[in-house]
Amino acid sequence: MEIVEKILKSYEEIGGLSNTDGVNLPSKLVVGSICADLLQILFPGFHDLEPISKESLPAMTQQRLTRLMERFEEQILRSLTLEDSACTAKKAARVSGEFFGALPDLRRTLKTDVVAAYEGDPAAVGLSEIVLSYPCVVAIAIQRMAHLLYLARVPLIPRIMTEWAHAETGVDIHPGATIGESFFIDHGTGVVIGETCEIGNRVKLYHGVTLGARSFAKDEQGHIVKGGKRHPKVEDDVTIYPNSTILGGETVIGANSTIGANVFLMASVPPDSLVTYEEKQLRIVSKRPRPNGQEALEWSI
Amino acid sequence: MEIVEKILKSYEEIGGLSNTDGVNLPSKLVVGSICADLLQILFPGFHDLEPISKESLPAMTQQRLTRLMERFEEQILRSLTLEDSACTAKKAARVSGEFFGALPDLRRTLKTDVVAAYEGDPAAVGLSEIVLSYPCVVAIAIQRMAHLLYLARVPLIPRIMTEWAHAETGVDIHPGATIGESFFIDHGTGVVIGETCEIGNRVKLYHGVTLGARSFAKDEQGHIVKGGKRHPKVEDDVTIYPNSTILGGETVIGANSTIGANVFLMASVPPDSLVTYEEKQLRIVSKRPRPNGQEALEWSI
Amino acid sequence: MEIVEKILKSYEEIGGLSNTDGVNLPSKLVVGSICADLLQILFPGFHDLEPISKESLPAMTQQRLTRLMERFEEQILRSLTLEDSACTAKKAARVSGEFFGALPDLRRTLKTDVVAAYEGDPAAVGLSEIVLSYPCVVAIAIQRMAHLLYLARVPLIPRIMTEWAHAETGVDIHPGATIGESFFIDHGTGVVIGETCEIGNRVKLYHGVTLGARSFAKDEQGHIVKGGKRHPKVEDDVTIYPNSTILGGETVIGANSTIGANVFLMASVPPDSLVTYEEKQLRIVSKRPRPNGQEALEWSI
Repeated sequence: MEIVEKILKSYEEIGGLSNTDGVNLPSKLVVGSICADLLQILFPGFHDLEPISKESLPAMTQQRLTRLMERFEEQILRSLTLEDSACTAKKAARVSGEFFGALPDLRRTLKTDVVAAYEGDPAAVGLSEIVLSYPCVVAIAIQRMAHLLYLARVPLIPRIMTEWAHAETGVDIHPGATIGESFFIDHGTGVVIGETCEIGNRVKLYHGVTLGARSFAKDEQGHIVKGGKRHPKVEDDVTIYPNSTILGGETVIGANSTIGANVFLMASVPPDSLVTYEEKQLRIVSKRPRPNGQEALEWSI
Repeated sequence: MEIVEKILKSYEEIGGLSNTDGVNLPSKLVVGSICADLLQILFPGFHDLEPISKESLPAMTQQRLTRLMERFEEQILRSLTLEDSACTAKKAARVSGEFFGALPDLRRTLKTDVVAAYEGDPAAVGLSEIVLSYPCVVAIAIQRMAHLLYLARVPLIPRIMTEWAHAETGVDIHPGATIGESFFIDHGTGVVIGETCEIGNRVKLYHGVTLGARSFAKDEQGHIVKGGKRHPKVEDDVTIYPNSTILGGETVIGANSTIGANVFLMASVPPDSLVTYEEKQLRIVSKRPRPNGQEALEWSI
Repeated sequence: MEIVEKILKSYEEIGGLSNTDGVNLPSKLVVGSICADLLQILFPGFHDLEPISKESLPAMTQQRLTRLMERFEEQILRSLTLEDSACTAKKAARVSGEFFGALPDLRRTLKTDVVAAYEGDPAAVGLSEIVLSYPCVVAIAIQRMAHLLYLARVPLIPRIMTEWAHAETGVDIHPGATIGESFFIDHGTGVVIGETCEIGNRVKLYHGVTLGARSFAKDEQGHIVKGGKRHPKVEDDVTIYPNSTILGGETVIGANSTIGANVFLMASVPPDSLVTYEEKQLRIVSKRPRPNGQEALEWSI
């Protein structure tokens, strides 16, 4: 078929958009499925079709973990081989084993996050509701696991995991971000947290908050310099209201501060600060009657 | 396996993150599937792989509703039992029956919402396009149904439903919010509407609009007081442009008002108001030539 | 069953919410599945469970394309028949053939988009990472394909495609928008680009950016006038930071300009401009000691 010929020719001619030259990349679909299974392991009984009884829990956990670790090791091996063609299955098994070995401690940290959500949201009636339905739990659970793999210098998989969580929740946290305990993102949609962010304990973000980078340094050829500290530091006990944008690698939000909504900030603030826009900048115009005495029926902007 | 042992020990030690102690919670996966089936019942022929003929509609509806109501009653029974361990299947059937009995009237209200979308969006060419592809239809249909269950004091399920819609559409409306007719959210991503919001008729929101709460009252132990009127009231015929944040339980947006984009508002405004930022606060700097006469090639912020 | 009777009566009484009267609309579910398959064709080996070898690529591509084109033609035929009841399978095949014939050139453009993402994001370590996990790739690939069908005046399907991408990525670009090469949306969640937008080359948007319409002209009966140039023009080499809202059909963002974050703009700016809010409008209040010398423990807004 002529169309098939043209498409195949396009595969030949355009590099970078095909993965067919023998390099075994991690599979986006498999890693997404692994993320869902990891949530089942972290929160047994919350991501299942049927309830799990205490009696069946050990056998079910053994069975699930065994299958999950096989699939996980396969993807880890693919990733590690990208940077070291001599990488062995034994090394992938070690990296994978360390990852799963870290999950009990990670659950301890996730407990602090879930409690922070309960304490930080008047609408929350219990911990079950939060684990069952709050998108922040999925977002932070996946990021904390991706962060472990990022620290272990596993290529690609950490980012695939956080982008899976991004598609599920609207929350985009780079696996490189370092986040303290008792972290709560309410609502979530639109949150962006950059690779080199540092976030303290008991930080609460609302939806639409950006902790991002300013414009980027360029080298002599005009190419963006990769890496470097580019994202803000947020100290303990900070609250940031919806849709605020905080940029810059040298920007520090001091402990116990509150950033109001819709703020654009590229400067540091000391501890115990409140940052908002001056109210007088809001222009509130009430409708004046028309010359003939009739009220205008609507405003337009 | 050692890892399995450590994970099981973690399940024992950390409370609140497992659902394995005999409490039969509603299933997040099943409720999500129920939401998809409810959309098929509300909008027959729009959420199906194959078209439905008028002749097959009664039999198909009977079959679908029968299976749906069985699964729904099972989840309702689980929810009600959480608060009343003596709850019976008969009570769950009654609650379920009342819910499904209310769907015809709910469809009448949804018709006003679809028409409002058609009339409020110049890009919309017909009602079919809206029902077929606009995310606001999914978001408001699910919320209106979840609201019925919220009023019936069914635990957990209303929130699972609206979070399912949130994941599908990026629109986060608490099931407690009371919303009038002809409600249109254009684009949708990032909209957050809180539990105690009251929204009138013919209200139009753009994406990223927040109708949220201010900081929260705390009791003597420093814990957030749950419940209470925390979210704004939006009167009839209000339009709110993208990314505006309106907070507070005493905040009232008067009828027929327009709120501009990117506004942060915590005060009430009278009817017929227009709220925007003063234009002079925007700083527009045009590039000045370099001392040697060359134009600077780029700005950074 | 009484409930079934009431629902069926509701189907009879309320028009516009059912698709059961013989009109064969495109299927939202099938078109979504087609979108996923199109991504496999555009980026072979990135959206698959198993890797694809160079040897198997021609046969697999032939097989996939054949099945895909059959399903695609069926949906195209349904769409075209909505506006021309005499439309033939032959015409649908022609429109479909032209679409698939344009994909090689479209891949060339997508390559510029992927390179722009690599060059525009310090966190990106290689092209594979971008194709594998960046949501902007899905969003722009789907929009560019939907745009081809929009130009071919195919009803409904273009919008179903972009709303599928919207649900997947949080990026909402109307199929009518005209977008140049090397287009990069970082993070993506909350971006809205309207039907009549014109975007130049090497434009970079962050998440939450709106290129939208102002209020709408109405005719003598008070109905919104459909169509018309309503959305901004963004010239080459423009960068727009997160959550900025730019509205209006006459608004032009001049080449090589930078728009800061959280800006609300309805006026044109000349080339080489920088648009931000005056810093002095941010009110930063540090906590003052209480009269008794104790520090206040927290701020509320």
